[in-house]
Amino acid sequence: MLTFVGLGLYDERSVTLAGRDAIRAADRVFAEFYTSQLAGTTIDALEDFHDIEIEVRDRAGVEQDPDPILAAAASGDAVFLTAGDTMISTTHVDLRLRAEDRGVETRVIHGTTAQAAASSLTGLQNYRFGKATTLPFERSHGGDGVPGSVIETIEANQERGLHTLVFLDITAESDEGTYMRGDEATSLLAEHWRPDALGVVVARAGSADPVVRAGRLADLAEMDFGDPLHLLVVPGSLHYLERDALAAIGDGPAAVLDENTVE
Amino acid sequence: MLTFVGLGLYDERSVTLAGRDAIRAADRVFAEFYTSQLAGTTIDALEDFHDIEIEVRDRAGVEQDPDPILAAAASGDAVFLTAGDTMISTTHVDLRLRAEDRGVETRVIHGTTAQAAASSLTGLQNYRFGKATTLPFERSHGGDGVPGSVIETIEANQERGLHTLVFLDITAESDEGTYMRGDEATSLLAEHWRPDALGVVVARAGSADPVVRAGRLADLAEMDFGDPLHLLVVPGSLHYLERDALAAIGDGPAAVLDENTVE
Repeated sequence: MLTFVGLGLYDERSVTLAGRDAIRAADRVFAEFYTSQLAGTTIDALEDFHDIEIEVRDRAGVEQDPDPILAAAASGDAVFLTAGDTMISTTHVDLRLRAEDRGVETRVIHGTTAQAAASSLTGLQNYRFGKATTLPFERSHGGDGVPGSVIETIEANQERGLHTLVFLDITAESDEGTYMRGDEATSLLAEHWRPDALGVVVARAGSADPVVRAGRLADLAEMDFGDPLHLLVVPGSLHYLERDALAAIGDGPAAVLDENTVE
Repeated sequence: MLTFVGLGLYDERSVTLAGRDAIRAADRVFAEFYTSQLAGTTIDALEDFHDIEIEVRDRAGVEQDPDPILAAAASGDAVFLTAGDTMISTTHVDLRLRAEDRGVETRVIHGTTAQAAASSLTGLQNYRFGKATTLPFERSHGGDGVPGSVIETIEANQERGLHTLVFLDITAESDEGTYMRGDEATSLLAEHWRPDALGVVVARAGSADPVVRAGRLADLAEMDFGDPLHLLVVPGSLHYLERDALAAIGDGPAAVLDENTVE
Protein backbone atom coordinates (compact mmCIF):
# COMPACT_ATOMS: atom_id res chain seq x y z
CA MET A 1 0.00 0.00 0.00
CA LEU A 2 1.23 3.48 -0.90
CA THR A 3 -0.48 6.18 1.17
CA PHE A 4 -0.03 9.79 0.13
CA VAL A 5 -0.36 12.05 3.16
CA GLY A 6 -0.67 15.84 3.01
CA LEU A 7 1.05 17.38 6.04
CA GLY A 8 -1.04 20.53 5.85
CA LEU A 9 -0.13 24.16 5.91
CA TYR A 10 2.41 25.03 8.51
CA ASP A 11 3.97 22.75 11.12
CA GLU A 12 3.87 19.24 12.62
CA ARG A 13 0.41 19.84 14.12
CA SER A 14 -1.13 20.74 10.73
CA VAL A 15 -1.63 17.10 9.76
CA THR A 16 -4.99 15.41 10.29
CA LEU A 17 -5.52 12.64 12.83
CA ALA A 18 -6.01 10.21 9.94
CA GLY A 19 -2.72 11.34 8.44
CA ARG A 20 -0.90 11.06 11.76
CA ASP A 21 -2.22 7.53 12.22
CA ALA A 22 -1.06 6.49 8.74
CA ILE A 23 2.40 7.94 9.34
CA ARG A 24 2.81 6.11 12.63
CA ALA A 25 1.57 2.81 11.22
CA ALA A 26 3.86 2.88 8.19
CA ASP A 27 6.79 0.54 7.65
CA ARG A 28 8.64 3.26 5.74
CA VAL A 29 8.03 6.98 5.37
CA PHE A 30 9.21 8.89 2.29
CA ALA A 31 8.83 12.61 1.64
CA GLU A 32 9.57 15.27 -0.94
CA PHE A 33 9.95 18.97 -0.20
CA TYR A 34 10.89 20.22 -3.67
CA THR A 35 7.33 21.16 -4.70
CA SER A 36 6.39 22.76 -1.38
CA GLN A 37 7.73 23.13 2.14
CA LEU A 38 6.45 23.51 5.70
CA ALA A 39 7.64 26.88 6.93
CA GLY A 40 6.89 26.15 10.60
CA THR A 41 8.86 22.98 11.19
CA THR A 42 11.87 20.94 10.11
CA ILE A 43 12.39 17.38 9.00
CA ASP A 44 14.13 16.62 12.32
CA ALA A 45 11.18 18.02 14.25
CA LEU A 46 8.73 15.96 12.19
CA GLU A 47 10.78 12.82 12.85
CA ASP A 48 10.87 13.49 16.58
CA PHE A 49 7.20 14.40 16.73
CA HIS A 50 6.02 11.21 15.02
CA ASP A 51 8.91 9.02 16.24
CA ILE A 52 9.74 7.95 12.71
CA GLU A 53 12.56 8.15 10.20
CA ILE A 54 11.77 10.17 7.08
CA GLU A 55 13.53 9.32 3.82
CA VAL A 56 13.57 12.58 1.86
CA ARG A 57 13.73 12.27 -1.93
CA ASP A 58 14.71 14.95 -4.43
CA ARG A 59 12.96 15.28 -7.78
CA ALA A 60 15.22 12.73 -9.47
CA GLY A 61 14.58 10.31 -6.60
CA VAL A 62 10.86 10.47 -7.24
CA GLU A 63 10.58 10.87 -10.98
CA GLN A 64 13.58 8.98 -12.34
CA ASP A 65 14.22 6.44 -9.63
CA PRO A 66 10.88 5.69 -7.97
CA ASP A 67 11.62 1.95 -7.69
CA PRO A 68 12.69 1.93 -4.02
CA ILE A 69 9.46 3.71 -3.04
CA LEU A 70 7.32 1.40 -5.16
CA ALA A 71 9.11 -1.70 -3.86
CA ALA A 72 8.53 -0.60 -0.26
CA ALA A 73 4.86 -0.03 -1.06
CA ALA A 74 4.56 -3.43 -2.74
CA SER A 75 5.99 -5.31 0.26
CA GLY A 76 4.58 -3.23 3.12
CA ASP A 77 2.92 0.02 4.16
CA ALA A 78 4.75 2.99 2.66
CA VAL A 79 3.74 6.59 3.23
CA PHE A 80 4.71 9.47 0.97
CA LEU A 81 4.60 12.89 2.63
CA THR A 82 4.18 16.31 1.06
CA ALA A 83 3.45 19.76 2.46
CA GLY A 84 -0.10 21.08 2.07
CA ASP A 85 -2.47 18.68 0.39
CA THR A 86 -1.01 15.75 -1.46
CA MET A 87 -1.19 14.93 -5.19
CA ILE A 88 -1.11 18.64 -5.99
CA SER A 89 1.80 18.32 -8.42
CA THR A 90 2.12 16.16 -11.48
CA THR A 91 5.09 14.48 -9.83
CA HIS A 92 2.75 12.86 -7.27
CA VAL A 93 0.11 11.88 -9.80
CA ASP A 94 2.83 10.25 -11.85
CA LEU A 95 4.06 8.26 -8.83
CA ARG A 96 0.51 7.18 -8.00
CA LEU A 97 -0.12 5.99 -11.55
CA ARG A 98 3.14 4.02 -11.53
CA ALA A 99 2.05 2.32 -8.32
CA GLU A 100 -1.42 1.50 -9.68
CA ASP A 101 0.22 0.20 -12.83
CA ARG A 102 2.20 -2.28 -10.74
CA GLY A 103 -0.89 -3.37 -8.85
CA VAL A 104 0.10 -1.54 -5.68
CA GLU A 105 -2.94 -0.15 -3.86
CA THR A 106 -2.86 3.60 -3.24
CA ARG A 107 -4.66 5.86 -0.82
CA VAL A 108 -4.83 9.64 -0.36
CA ILE A 109 -5.11 11.44 3.00
CA HIS A 110 -5.78 15.11 2.48
CA GLY A 111 -4.06 18.08 4.08
CA THR A 112 -5.08 21.67 4.58
CA THR A 113 -4.19 24.02 1.73
CA ALA A 114 -3.15 27.57 0.98
CA GLN A 115 -6.18 27.82 -1.27
CA ALA A 116 -8.58 27.30 1.62
CA ALA A 117 -6.54 29.57 3.88
CA ALA A 118 -6.51 32.39 1.32
CA SER A 119 -10.26 32.42 1.54
CA SER A 120 -10.91 31.72 5.20
CA LEU A 121 -8.23 34.02 6.65
CA THR A 122 -9.18 37.00 4.49
CA GLY A 123 -12.98 36.71 4.44
CA LEU A 124 -12.88 36.62 0.63
CA GLN A 125 -15.52 34.15 -0.47
CA ASN A 126 -14.33 30.79 -1.64
CA TYR A 127 -16.68 30.55 -4.64
CA ARG A 128 -15.51 33.93 -5.93
CA PHE A 129 -11.95 32.78 -6.68
CA GLY A 130 -10.96 32.02 -10.27
CA LYS A 131 -7.91 30.15 -11.53
CA ALA A 132 -4.80 30.47 -9.35
CA THR A 133 -1.34 31.39 -10.60
CA THR A 134 2.28 31.46 -9.40
CA LEU A 135 4.54 34.52 -9.43
CA PRO A 136 8.14 33.44 -10.08
CA PHE A 137 11.35 35.18 -9.07
CA GLU A 138 12.74 37.14 -12.03
CA ARG A 139 15.79 34.86 -11.98
CA SER A 140 13.55 31.78 -12.13
CA HIS A 141 11.68 32.65 -15.29
CA GLY A 142 14.75 34.12 -16.93
CA GLY A 143 13.10 37.39 -17.85
CA ASP A 144 12.49 40.79 -16.32
CA GLY A 145 9.39 41.70 -14.40
CA VAL A 146 6.25 39.60 -14.32
CA PRO A 147 5.41 36.87 -16.86
CA GLY A 148 2.53 37.84 -19.12
CA SER A 149 0.66 34.69 -18.13
CA VAL A 150 0.40 35.86 -14.51
CA ILE A 151 -1.13 39.19 -15.48
CA GLU A 152 -3.42 37.51 -18.01
CA THR A 153 -4.75 35.17 -15.32
CA ILE A 154 -5.40 38.04 -12.89
CA GLU A 155 -7.10 40.15 -15.55
CA ALA A 156 -9.19 37.29 -16.95
CA ASN A 157 -10.45 36.59 -13.42
CA GLN A 158 -11.12 40.28 -12.75
CA GLU A 159 -13.18 40.56 -15.95
CA ARG A 160 -15.51 38.04 -14.28
CA GLY A 161 -15.29 39.81 -10.91
CA LEU A 162 -13.19 36.94 -9.48
CA HIS A 163 -10.29 36.91 -7.04
CA THR A 164 -6.90 35.42 -7.90
CA LEU A 165 -4.72 33.49 -5.47
CA VAL A 166 -1.08 34.14 -6.38
CA PHE A 167 1.33 31.55 -5.04
CA LEU A 168 4.78 33.05 -4.48
CA ASP A 169 7.86 31.33 -5.78
CA ILE A 170 9.88 28.94 -3.63
CA THR A 171 13.32 27.82 -4.73
CA ALA A 172 15.41 25.10 -3.14
CA GLU A 173 18.56 27.22 -3.22
CA SER A 174 19.25 26.60 0.46
CA ASP A 175 18.21 23.83 2.84
CA GLU A 176 15.39 25.97 4.15
CA GLY A 177 14.39 27.10 0.68
CA THR A 178 14.15 30.69 -0.51
CA TYR A 179 10.64 32.07 -0.31
CA MET A 180 9.40 35.09 -2.24
CA ARG A 181 8.14 37.61 0.30
CA GLY A 182 4.88 39.53 0.08
CA ASP A 183 6.68 42.86 -0.29
CA GLU A 184 8.74 41.47 -3.18
CA ALA A 185 5.65 40.13 -4.92
CA THR A 186 3.62 43.31 -4.54
CA SER A 187 6.63 45.37 -5.61
CA LEU A 188 6.94 43.35 -8.84
CA LEU A 189 3.23 43.72 -9.61
CA ALA A 190 3.19 47.41 -8.65
CA GLU A 191 6.07 48.11 -10.99
CA HIS A 192 5.05 45.93 -13.92
CA TRP A 193 1.25 46.02 -13.66
CA ARG A 194 -0.82 48.46 -11.53
CA PRO A 195 0.61 50.16 -8.41
CA ASP A 196 -2.85 51.35 -7.31
CA ALA A 197 -4.54 47.95 -7.55
CA LEU A 198 -5.82 46.26 -4.39
CA GLY A 199 -3.80 43.35 -3.03
CA VAL A 200 -4.03 41.19 0.10
CA VAL A 201 -0.93 39.60 1.58
CA VAL A 202 -1.35 36.57 3.85
CA ALA A 203 1.65 35.55 5.94
CA ARG A 204 2.09 32.31 7.90
CA ALA A 205 -1.27 30.76 7.00
CA GLY A 206 -1.93 27.83 9.27
CA SER A 207 0.21 29.16 12.11
CA ALA A 208 -0.98 30.63 15.41
CA ASP A 209 -0.02 34.14 14.27
CA PRO A 210 -1.04 34.64 10.65
CA VAL A 211 -1.02 38.18 9.25
CA VAL A 212 -3.50 39.54 6.70
CA ARG A 213 -2.90 42.98 5.19
CA ALA A 214 -4.97 44.62 2.47
CA GLY A 215 -3.88 47.72 0.56
CA ARG A 216 -2.65 49.12 -2.70
CA LEU A 217 0.14 47.04 -4.22
CA ALA A 218 2.59 49.96 -4.02
CA ASP A 219 1.86 50.39 -0.30
CA LEU A 220 2.09 46.67 0.49
CA ALA A 221 5.48 46.70 -1.25
CA GLU A 222 6.83 48.89 1.59
CA MET A 223 5.69 46.60 4.43
CA ASP A 224 7.39 43.80 6.35
CA PHE A 225 5.22 40.70 6.77
CA GLY A 226 7.67 38.71 8.87
CA ASP A 227 8.51 35.06 8.54
CA PRO A 228 7.39 32.93 5.59
CA LEU A 229 5.27 31.57 3.96
CA HIS A 230 3.59 34.48 2.21
CA LEU A 231 0.69 34.40 -0.24
CA LEU A 232 -0.89 37.15 -2.29
CA VAL A 233 -4.52 37.53 -3.28
CA VAL A 234 -5.49 40.00 -5.99
CA PRO A 235 -9.22 40.52 -5.48
CA GLY A 236 -11.78 41.01 -8.20
CA SER A 237 -14.82 42.97 -7.14
CA LEU A 238 -15.68 42.93 -3.43
CA HIS A 239 -19.07 42.28 -1.90
CA TYR A 240 -19.89 44.37 1.18
CA LEU A 241 -19.05 41.63 3.67
CA GLU A 242 -15.73 41.01 1.92
CA ARG A 243 -15.01 44.72 2.09
CA ASP A 244 -15.83 44.76 5.82
CA ALA A 245 -13.60 41.73 6.43
CA LEU A 246 -10.63 43.29 4.63
CA ALA A 247 -11.13 46.47 6.65
CA ALA A 248 -11.46 44.72 10.03
CA ILE A 249 -9.10 41.78 9.62
CA GLY A 250 -6.79 43.10 6.90
CA ASP A 251 -6.51 46.70 8.09
CA GLY A 252 -7.34 47.85 4.55
CA PRO A 253 -7.69 51.59 3.89
CA ALA A 254 -11.27 52.60 3.09
CA ALA A 255 -10.44 54.35 -0.19
CA VAL A 256 -8.97 51.36 -2.01
CA LEU A 257 -11.58 48.97 -0.58
CA ASP A 258 -14.47 51.21 -1.62
CA GLU A 259 -13.08 51.57 -5.16
CA ASN A 260 -13.27 47.80 -5.52
CA THR A 261 -16.67 47.21 -3.91
CA VAL A 262 -19.54 46.62 -6.29
CA GLU A 263 -22.73 45.76 -4.50
CA MET B 1 -11.01 33.95 22.41
CA LEU B 2 -13.19 32.60 19.62
CA THR B 3 -11.46 29.85 17.64
CA PHE B 4 -13.02 28.70 14.39
CA VAL B 5 -12.07 25.08 13.71
CA GLY B 6 -12.64 23.31 10.41
CA LEU B 7 -13.42 19.63 11.09
CA GLY B 8 -12.27 18.57 7.63
CA LEU B 9 -13.85 16.41 5.00
CA TYR B 10 -15.37 13.28 6.35
CA ASP B 11 -15.33 12.00 9.94
CA GLU B 12 -13.95 12.64 13.42
CA ARG B 13 -10.39 11.81 12.29
CA SER B 14 -10.43 14.46 9.52
CA VAL B 15 -9.57 17.28 11.91
CA THR B 16 -5.97 18.44 12.29
CA LEU B 17 -3.97 17.92 15.47
CA ALA B 18 -4.06 21.69 16.03
CA GLY B 19 -7.84 21.62 15.69
CA ARG B 20 -8.21 18.65 18.03
CA ASP B 21 -6.08 20.41 20.65
CA ALA B 22 -8.19 23.57 20.43
CA ILE B 23 -11.41 21.58 20.79
CA ARG B 24 -10.17 19.75 23.86
CA ALA B 25 -8.86 22.91 25.51
CA ALA B 26 -12.08 24.87 24.99
CA ASP B 27 -14.43 25.93 27.77
CA ARG B 28 -17.40 25.67 25.40
CA VAL B 29 -17.78 24.15 21.95
CA PHE B 30 -20.39 25.43 19.49
CA ALA B 31 -21.07 24.08 16.01
CA GLU B 32 -23.25 24.67 12.98
CA PHE B 33 -24.12 22.06 10.39
CA TYR B 34 -26.52 24.04 8.20
CA THR B 35 -23.87 25.14 5.67
CA SER B 36 -22.13 21.77 5.43
CA GLN B 37 -22.13 18.39 7.16
CA LEU B 38 -19.74 15.54 7.88
CA ALA B 39 -21.08 12.50 6.07
CA GLY B 40 -18.90 10.03 7.98
CA THR B 41 -19.77 10.78 11.58
CA THR B 42 -22.47 12.10 13.90
CA ILE B 43 -22.58 14.77 16.57
CA ASP B 44 -22.76 12.08 19.24
CA ALA B 45 -19.67 10.37 17.83
CA LEU B 46 -17.79 13.68 17.74
CA GLU B 47 -18.74 14.35 21.36
CA ASP B 48 -17.57 10.90 22.44
CA PHE B 49 -14.39 11.09 20.41
CA HIS B 50 -13.28 14.42 21.87
CA ASP B 51 -14.98 13.93 25.26
CA ILE B 52 -16.82 17.23 24.94
CA GLU B 53 -20.33 18.58 24.73
CA ILE B 54 -21.20 20.27 21.44
CA GLU B 55 -23.83 23.03 21.39
CA VAL B 56 -25.28 22.92 17.87
CA ARG B 57 -26.76 26.16 16.56
CA ASP B 58 -29.13 26.63 13.65
CA ARG B 59 -28.87 29.59 11.28
CA ALA B 60 -30.99 31.82 13.50
CA GLY B 61 -28.85 30.88 16.49
CA VAL B 62 -25.73 32.11 14.71
CA GLU B 63 -26.96 35.04 12.67
CA GLN B 64 -29.77 36.51 14.75
CA ASP B 65 -28.80 35.48 18.25
CA PRO B 66 -24.98 35.22 18.36
CA ASP B 67 -24.76 36.80 21.82
CA PRO B 68 -24.37 33.56 23.80
CA ILE B 69 -21.46 32.52 21.56
CA LEU B 70 -19.83 35.92 21.76
CA ALA B 71 -20.30 36.09 25.52
CA ALA B 72 -18.69 32.67 25.95
CA ALA B 73 -15.78 33.81 23.78
CA ALA B 74 -15.40 37.04 25.75
CA SER B 75 -15.18 35.26 29.09
CA GLY B 76 -13.29 32.10 28.12
CA ASP B 77 -12.11 29.89 25.28
CA ALA B 78 -14.94 29.17 22.85
CA VAL B 79 -14.60 27.02 19.75
CA PHE B 80 -16.93 27.18 16.76
CA LEU B 81 -16.94 24.03 14.62
CA THR B 82 -17.86 23.62 10.97
CA ALA B 83 -17.44 20.80 8.48
CA GLY B 84 -14.65 21.19 5.92
CA ASP B 85 -12.60 24.34 6.29
CA THR B 86 -13.98 27.08 8.44
CA MET B 87 -15.04 30.63 7.46
CA ILE B 88 -16.18 29.34 4.09
CA SER B 89 -19.63 30.87 4.36
CA THR B 90 -20.59 34.47 4.96
CA THR B 91 -22.32 33.34 8.15
CA HIS B 92 -18.91 32.59 9.72
CA VAL B 93 -17.26 35.76 8.46
CA ASP B 94 -20.12 37.72 9.92
CA LEU B 95 -19.69 36.01 13.31
CA ARG B 96 -15.96 36.65 13.25
CA LEU B 97 -16.43 40.34 12.49
CA ARG B 98 -18.96 40.68 15.31
CA ALA B 99 -16.42 39.15 17.69
CA GLU B 100 -13.61 41.44 16.50
CA ASP B 101 -15.99 44.36 16.81
CA ARG B 102 -16.46 43.53 20.49
CA GLY B 103 -12.75 43.21 21.05
CA VAL B 104 -12.85 39.40 21.27
CA GLU B 105 -9.73 37.83 19.79
CA THR B 106 -10.39 35.33 16.98
CA ARG B 107 -8.33 32.53 15.50
CA VAL B 108 -8.82 30.21 12.53
CA ILE B 109 -7.71 26.56 12.39
CA HIS B 110 -8.09 25.21 8.90
CA GLY B 111 -9.68 21.95 7.77
CA THR B 112 -9.34 19.87 4.64
CA THR B 113 -11.69 20.80 1.81
CA ALA B 114 -13.67 19.34 -1.05
CA GLN B 115 -11.82 21.70 -3.34
CA ALA B 116 -8.46 20.11 -2.55
CA ALA B 117 -9.97 16.63 -2.70
CA ALA B 118 -11.54 17.25 -6.10
CA SER B 119 -8.08 17.82 -7.43
CA SER B 120 -5.99 15.34 -5.52
CA LEU B 121 -8.36 12.37 -5.81
CA THR B 122 -8.93 12.77 -9.53
CA GLY B 123 -5.47 13.76 -10.72
CA LEU B 124 -6.93 16.92 -12.26
CA GLN B 125 -4.44 19.70 -11.67
CA ASN B 126 -5.22 22.19 -8.97
CA TYR B 127 -4.16 25.28 -10.94
CA ARG B 128 -6.43 24.31 -13.84
CA PHE B 129 -9.66 24.77 -11.88
CA GLY B 130 -11.73 27.92 -12.44
CA LYS B 131 -14.56 29.28 -10.32
CA ALA B 132 -16.63 26.66 -8.50
CA THR B 133 -20.41 26.46 -8.51
CA THR B 134 -23.26 24.67 -6.72
CA LEU B 135 -25.96 22.60 -8.39
CA PRO B 136 -29.24 22.94 -6.46
CA PHE B 137 -32.14 20.50 -6.28
CA GLU B 138 -34.88 21.61 -8.65
CA ARG B 139 -37.16 22.10 -5.62
CA SER B 140 -34.53 24.34 -3.98
CA HIS B 141 -34.20 26.88 -6.76
CA GLY B 142 -37.88 26.79 -7.53
CA GLY B 143 -37.42 26.16 -11.22
CA ASP B 144 -37.04 23.27 -13.59
CA GLY B 145 -33.71 21.88 -14.66
CA VAL B 146 -30.39 23.58 -14.07
CA PRO B 147 -30.00 27.28 -13.23
CA GLY B 148 -28.44 29.26 -16.05
CA SER B 149 -25.71 30.52 -13.73
CA VAL B 150 -24.38 26.96 -13.23
CA ILE B 151 -24.06 26.35 -16.95
CA GLU B 152 -22.57 29.80 -17.51
CA THR B 153 -19.89 29.09 -14.91
CA ILE B 154 -19.00 25.73 -16.46
CA GLU B 155 -18.88 27.17 -19.99
CA ALA B 156 -16.92 30.28 -19.00
CA ASN B 157 -14.33 28.00 -17.37
CA GLN B 158 -14.25 25.66 -20.36
CA GLU B 159 -13.62 28.57 -22.73
CA ARG B 160 -10.37 29.02 -20.84
CA GLY B 161 -9.71 25.26 -20.71
CA LEU B 162 -10.46 25.16 -16.98
CA HIS B 163 -12.18 22.55 -14.83
CA THR B 164 -15.26 23.31 -12.72
CA LEU B 165 -15.92 21.87 -9.29
CA VAL B 166 -19.68 21.49 -8.87
CA PHE B 167 -20.81 21.24 -5.25
CA LEU B 168 -24.03 19.25 -4.98
CA ASP B 169 -26.94 20.57 -2.97
CA ILE B 170 -27.47 19.63 0.67
CA THR B 171 -30.74 20.38 2.38
CA ALA B 172 -31.47 20.05 6.07
CA GLU B 173 -34.80 18.33 5.46
CA SER B 174 -33.92 15.50 7.81
CA ASP B 175 -31.49 15.23 10.72
CA GLU B 176 -28.92 13.60 8.47
CA GLY B 177 -29.55 16.09 5.67
CA THR B 178 -30.53 15.23 2.13
CA TYR B 179 -27.60 15.07 -0.22
CA MET B 180 -27.83 15.35 -3.99
CA ARG B 181 -26.27 12.20 -5.44
CA GLY B 182 -23.81 12.08 -8.32
CA ASP B 183 -26.30 10.24 -10.53
CA GLU B 184 -28.94 12.90 -9.88
CA ALA B 185 -26.49 15.71 -10.66
CA THR B 186 -25.20 14.16 -13.88
CA SER B 187 -28.76 13.31 -14.93
CA LEU B 188 -29.79 16.96 -14.54
CA LEU B 189 -26.81 18.19 -16.54
CA ALA B 190 -27.20 15.48 -19.16
CA GLU B 191 -30.83 16.42 -19.71
CA HIS B 192 -30.51 20.19 -19.56
CA TRP B 193 -27.00 20.75 -20.93
CA ARG B 194 -24.86 18.16 -22.77
CA PRO B 195 -25.34 14.38 -22.30
CA ASP B 196 -22.06 13.62 -24.09
CA ALA B 197 -19.90 15.94 -22.02
CA LEU B 198 -17.22 14.50 -19.74
CA GLY B 199 -17.93 14.47 -16.02
CA VAL B 200 -16.11 13.08 -12.98
CA VAL B 201 -18.02 12.04 -9.88
CA VAL B 202 -16.16 11.85 -6.56
CA ALA B 203 -17.89 10.03 -3.71
CA ARG B 204 -16.87 10.02 -0.04
CA ALA B 205 -13.84 12.30 -0.39
CA GLY B 206 -11.75 12.10 2.74
CA SER B 207 -12.94 8.62 3.67
CA ALA B 208 -10.96 5.37 3.45
CA ASP B 209 -13.00 4.26 0.41
CA PRO B 210 -13.50 7.21 -1.95
CA VAL B 211 -14.79 6.50 -5.45
CA VAL B 212 -13.80 8.41 -8.58
CA ARG B 213 -15.63 7.72 -11.83
CA ALA B 214 -15.11 9.53 -15.14
CA GLY B 215 -17.45 9.23 -18.11
CA ARG B 216 -20.07 10.93 -20.20
CA LEU B 217 -22.72 12.67 -18.12
CA ALA B 218 -25.47 10.46 -19.51
CA ASP B 219 -23.53 7.32 -18.54
CA LEU B 220 -22.66 8.56 -15.05
CA ALA B 221 -26.38 9.26 -14.57
CA GLU B 222 -26.98 5.47 -14.67
CA MET B 223 -24.43 4.61 -11.97
CA ASP B 224 -24.65 4.12 -8.21
CA PHE B 225 -21.90 5.87 -6.28
CA GLY B 226 -22.91 4.66 -2.84
CA ASP B 227 -23.03 6.67 0.37
CA PRO B 228 -22.65 10.48 0.42
CA LEU B 229 -21.05 12.98 0.08
CA HIS B 230 -20.79 13.25 -3.71
CA LEU B 231 -19.05 15.92 -5.78
CA LEU B 232 -18.97 16.51 -9.51
CA VAL B 233 -16.14 17.90 -11.60
CA VAL B 234 -16.79 19.03 -15.15
CA PRO B 235 -13.34 19.14 -16.75
CA GLY B 236 -12.16 21.66 -19.27
CA SER B 237 -9.41 20.41 -21.55
CA LEU B 238 -7.26 17.55 -20.23
CA HIS B 239 -3.49 17.36 -20.29
CA TYR B 240 -2.04 13.91 -21.01
CA LEU B 241 -1.31 13.11 -17.36
CA GLU B 242 -4.82 14.17 -16.37
CA ARG B 243 -6.19 11.94 -19.10
CA ASP B 244 -4.08 9.02 -17.82
CA ALA B 245 -5.22 9.63 -14.25
CA LEU B 246 -8.92 9.66 -15.20
CA ALA B 247 -8.39 6.43 -17.12
CA ALA B 248 -6.47 4.63 -14.36
CA ILE B 249 -8.12 6.03 -11.24
CA GLY B 250 -11.51 7.06 -12.64
CA ASP B 251 -12.09 4.14 -14.98
CA GLY B 252 -12.87 6.63 -17.76
CA PRO B 253 -13.60 5.28 -21.27
CA ALA B 254 -10.87 6.16 -23.77
CA ALA B 255 -13.21 7.76 -26.31
CA VAL B 256 -14.58 10.52 -24.10
CA LEU B 257 -11.19 11.15 -22.47
CA ASP B 258 -9.44 11.46 -25.83
CA GLU B 259 -12.07 13.88 -27.14
CA ASN B 260 -11.23 16.20 -24.25
CA THR B 261 -7.43 15.91 -24.34
CA VAL B 262 -5.58 18.79 -25.95
CA GLU B 263 -1.83 18.45 -25.70
